[in-house]
Amino acid sequence: MKSVGVAILGLGVVGSGTYKILRDHREFYKETQDVDISVESVLEINKQKALALGIEESRISDNIAEVVSNPNVDIVVEVIGGVEPARTFVLAALHSGKSVVTSNKELFCKYWHELERAAKRTNAGLYFEASCVGGVPIIRTLIDGMQANHIRTLKGIINGTTNYILTRMAKEGLGYQEVLKDAQALGYAEANPAADVEGYDAAYKLSILSSLAFHKKVPLDKIYREGITSVDRKDIKYGAELGYTLKLLAIGKNGEEGIEARVHPAFVKNKHPLASVNGSFNAVYLQGDSVGDIMLYGRGAGDMPTGSAIVSDVIYAATHSDVKYSTFKNSAGAEKGVRFVNDFRSRYYIRFTARDKAGVLAKVAGIFAKFNISIVDLIQKGEEQDNVPIILVTHETGEMSLRRAVEKIRALEDVVEVNSVIRVED
Amino acid sequence: MKSVGVAILGLGVVGSGTYKILRDHREFYKETQDVDISVESVLEINKQKALALGIEESRISDNIAEVVSNPNVDIVVEVIGGVEPARTFVLAALHSGKSVVTSNKELFCKYWHELERAAKRTNAGLYFEASCVGGVPIIRTLIDGMQANHIRTLKGIINGTTNYILTRMAKEGLGYQEVLKDAQALGYAEANPAADVEGYDAAYKLSILSSLAFHKKVPLDKIYREGITSVDRKDIKYGAELGYTLKLLAIGKNGEEGIEARVHPAFVKNKHPLASVNGSFNAVYLQGDSVGDIMLYGRGAGDMPTGSAIVSDVIYAATHSDVKYSTFKNSAGAEKGVRFVNDFRSRYYIRFTARDKAGVLAKVAGIFAKFNISIVDLIQKGEEQDNVPIILVTHETGEMSLRRAVEKIRALEDVVEVNSVIRVED
Repeated sequence: MKSVGVAILGLGVVGSGTYKILRDHREFYKETQDVDISVESVLEINKQKALALGIEESRISDNIAEVVSNPNVDIVVEVIGGVEPARTFVLAALHSGKSVVTSNKELFCKYWHELERAAKRTNAGLYFEASCVGGVPIIRTLIDGMQANHIRTLKGIINGTTNYILTRMAKEGLGYQEVLKDAQALGYAEANPAADVEGYDAAYKLSILSSLAFHKKVPLDKIYREGITSVDRKDIKYGAELGYTLKLLAIGKNGEEGIEARVHPAFVKNKHPLASVNGSFNAVYLQGDSVGDIMLYGRGAGDMPTGSAIVSDVIYAATHSDVKYSTFKNSAGAEKGVRFVNDFRSRYYIRFTARDKAGVLAKVAGIFAKFNISIVDLIQKGEEQDNVPIILVTHETGEMSLRRAVEKIRALEDVVEVNSVIRVED
Repeated sequence: MKSVGVAILGLGVVGSGTYKILRDHREFYKETQDVDISVESVLEINKQKALALGIEESRISDNIAEVVSNPNVDIVVEVIGGVEPARTFVLAALHSGKSVVTSNKELFCKYWHELERAAKRTNAGLYFEASCVGGVPIIRTLIDGMQANHIRTLKGIINGTTNYILTRMAKEGLGYQEVLKDAQALGYAEANPAADVEGYDAAYKLSILSSLAFHKKVPLDKIYREGITSVDRKDIKYGAELGYTLKLLAIGKNGEEGIEARVHPAFVKNKHPLASVNGSFNAVYLQGDSVGDIMLYGRGAGDMPTGSAIVSDVIYAATHSDVKYSTFKNSAGAEKGVRFVNDFRSRYYIRFTARDKAGVLAKVAGIFAKFNISIVDLIQKGEEQDNVPIILVTHETGEMSLRRAVEKIRALEDVVEVNSVIRVED
């Protein structure tokens, strides 16, 4: 039986989960995977934390050089998060020929090319299943399950915090701030929630997933990003009346015009499988030219689900001798000649407030006609006296035309305010 | 770049789909997978069929010996289906050292041990992603994605024909025979539909999936099987009123009492992700001790989805040098010492018809009490005068107790008929 030594860098939520899984399943992996995996070293400044997990004092270190030079360590698990010092530590591990397993989406999104180069140099493995969508094996599926397909579309709910917030807003009719505070108190959102609620976390993951899906590097700066901080509960309610559920979607498309990648709130039809992905659950919906529609669903975060992905990679690293690196030209930025779509096409939900005067709707319709945008649904909400909320849903149109049309509507004398513009996905 | 030659045995639906995918994606695989895959040979008695696909005459054969001795063939794709001649052909390929990719669930379920032994002898690869759930990468996920987990439960909608029939019965209120005829006319069901509607196809797949999930051989004869032929549209309707959807479920559990594996119609709660898997879509829902709940969803059959899984295996076989065989003792039958649960536990929906007399319900309740079965829901349908349909849903209880209780109810003087007993899954 093969024996493999692991070092864990950082005993935070995921690091502790990983340690517990490896500790409690050691016999199970011997039996079912024919490999004996031992945790030989942990890098953790807070020694008490490590001792509390039952780790022997001699295996606790606060010195990365010591960890990566330990001859008993074959695989280094990086679960620190953020760019530094994670990047330096991972490079040190790769330089010394250790394989690396990481859950670090920000690091991987920004420095994938550098890490890959370092790994190739020493013939070390580099695994990152845990960087995207927690325990859901989406990376393995893209690399080894869907590789027969031209993947045309990838749509995901890939951030648990925002999905938890939007689900509660929808189910309980609460406002964003109220649910956010609750989510923070419950540990579902960070004290500084920007990475999640502004869509950065989803954008990091989308960069990784769409690069794999489309076989071209999709760098962060090519991803359009909009968070959920200005989502109004009214739109969730009006959307529900129209048969839609609001989600923070990460969307990647690879079409004739080029690649498009965007993260923003979007309405999906209630009967679409993504609409019923609730709470902290995540899902990725793919369309391949041969396989058709595929969806993977599961927990996108948490100590044990993400730990499951880490340990899955550790076992893979221990039992497979060949690692495939990205077959595309993996550079710091976008590859030359690869086109990215900015003026993407979508359907739109628009809510605006107008003075209750004859002729406003005619003017609005005229503006849309001018921009060649056709309207599918139009609802006038008669609840208020002077100022009337009007909701319309368009057919598919270009983002730029839509924005120009909205500017014209905003400028109309009898339009008090354009309250919301939300994309609608089929 | 590596060059790999493929032979396809049988140009039926899946074989033709596989050929088309390989033909149309050859450049794409060179680019993205760094491998040149050519179809060097097809085994097909109907030469015209092969010619119509554009296959050169020199590559069409009706002789398996010729195909497996072709030095240009590295990987043999078996998509004939059924046990013979597929078994003989696959063994011939493995004996000559060719790797085999198969979609044949019946062959694999019944002769996995024999094929595995033959493959090991010549160090050939043996891949079977396409045998279960079409294009959904469930095999790869079990082997390489969920391997960190003790999998406790596996629940699947893994037969497209029956799911198509049940979905239409539910949505259109039609009877089983009516939808079956339509499904046959549309090509969703075979002229002899027994393999699908009696649950054999699902049982083959469950045998393969639960063996992988639980790391123990789960042979066909340990699987309880019940088809959908006696499903009554009335129960679908009454179930809907109670918040349930009827599905043909394949269920595998690995608990303290042992392994249980069963295929039968079951009610699932409407809000469970499996309830919204409609038409010919399939899904597998897994629960792992670390990852929690995971679901994979997609097309379970069809030329292109199943072809996608076949080609995924071909690429895997071409680009990975190491194959893992089952780590469990893979024998013809169940391994000694492995316990299987027959008296499984479930909740139950029971519909019976009683004469409208005082005291019937008291007697029924008395019988359940005697067997220690508690009742959650009881609905008396008052539509008919003399004979009243009564529906009840129980708490979890043992199958054997339930059956005995139902026998007692059937024997009651005022009970006209016990119409249906359907398991209810949480």
